[in-house]
Amino acid sequence: MANILIEKKVLSANDTIASKLRETFQKHKIFVINIVSSPGSGKTSLLEKTVQLLNKNIQTGIIAGDVQTENDAKRIQKAGGKFVQPIETGGSCHLDAAMIEKSIAHFDLDKLDLLIIENVGNLVCPSCYDLGEDMKVVLLSTTEGDDKPLKYPSMFRNSSVMVINKTDLLYYTDFKLDEVRKNALQINGTFEIFETSCKTSDGLNEWINWLTKKVSETG
Amino acid sequence: MANILIEKKVLSANDTIASKLRETFQKHKIFVINIVSSPGSGKTSLLEKTVQLLNKNIQTGIIAGDVQTENDAKRIQKAGGKFVQPIETGGSCHLDAAMIEKSIAHFDLDKLDLLIIENVGNLVCPSCYDLGEDMKVVLLSTTEGDDKPLKYPSMFRNSSVMVINKTDLLYYTDFKLDEVRKNALQINGTFEIFETSCKTSDGLNEWINWLTKKVSETG
Repeated sequence: MANILIEKKVLSANDTIASKLRETFQKHKIFVINIVSSPGSGKTSLLEKTVQLLNKNIQTGIIAGDVQTENDAKRIQKAGGKFVQPIETGGSCHLDAAMIEKSIAHFDLDKLDLLIIENVGNLVCPSCYDLGEDMKVVLLSTTEGDDKPLKYPSMFRNSSVMVINKTDLLYYTDFKLDEVRKNALQINGTFEIFETSCKTSDGLNEWINWLTKKVSETG
Repeated sequence: MANILIEKKVLSANDTIASKLRETFQKHKIFVINIVSSPGSGKTSLLEKTVQLLNKNIQTGIIAGDVQTENDAKRIQKAGGKFVQPIETGGSCHLDAAMIEKSIAHFDLDKLDLLIIENVGNLVCPSCYDLGEDMKVVLLSTTEGDDKPLKYPSMFRNSSVMVINKTDLLYYTDFKLDEVRKNALQINGTFEIFETSCKTSDGLNEWINWLTKKVSETG
């Protein structure tokens, strides 16, 4: 019981900072997404493709969260990411709003149109932490199984967009697109769903077009 | 700082129960493993195959942990698992020793030779929670990338065995067996490593033989 109260206190402190962040992002007209998934679903690969394909006029900041190492940030920079900040959580299983507050001090917010936060690979804990984002985007790869929305409902309920990644591997798995759509919409009836392969580039245009539209609606 | 102290207190309370569990398991000569991995790496598939292939004289209890749903426990029962207990954590990102203590009350420990605990799919949090097991077995599927031991070092450091699963998909990914072995052994030089495919059954004999040997050494 004491633990639950403490958890509520931590989350409430997080929410206070997240609300301030949201105000800041709105003031600067920045569209902000928080990308969440299991380890190895392809968050970094999607970000590599995104910085390559997005119109270069869209100034994009990227915060790459990781338990240990700055490898993801380095990969995104190598792919052409101009404004990339790593956060090493040092063991923590999620990013929190205080980490984001500290990280955005490195950006010139007046210049940014889009901020993408790559969360720690974890399909449970990050679902509870508001980072001041406009929406969470949950990535699910075809090799993880089409049952995952039912098994990790909090994450799928708290996300607005689902990206089904690694569609190039569909043929080699038992993953059924119809089934995952049904399971996801059962948890969250308003899901916007994309299907992508960062290997073949299938579906990436739809993702980029959606992102561009969202940025233009915010700016 | 307060949060760290509270976390230490929670972990210390967990360790006390885990120590008691370990004593109980040793008294009953039960070999106990705690299987950990990301969501969708194939823990349940490996357990389905394990109950099918293990010598039926080895009495095996299985605790199937899940955030929500009892689907994993049902799958293992359907595959032939005789003594299967589900634990629904109700949102919690890991199993803890108190959950195991409650769950084993449903088993006749005198009859068991082997207890397999399937943890929640999460490559971060379960690494900190001792469940009284003899060892943690970390599962990593080839579609998750060969960098994962470096990115989630706590889990790989605290595990004694690594099972590289979904080797049938090796040909379709950039995953390199040499690279993952190098990365894993860099974190944990004493790792015992298996390579399995639950689809083609490749490598399962080695896994079953190892498990059988461990059970026989314990009994």
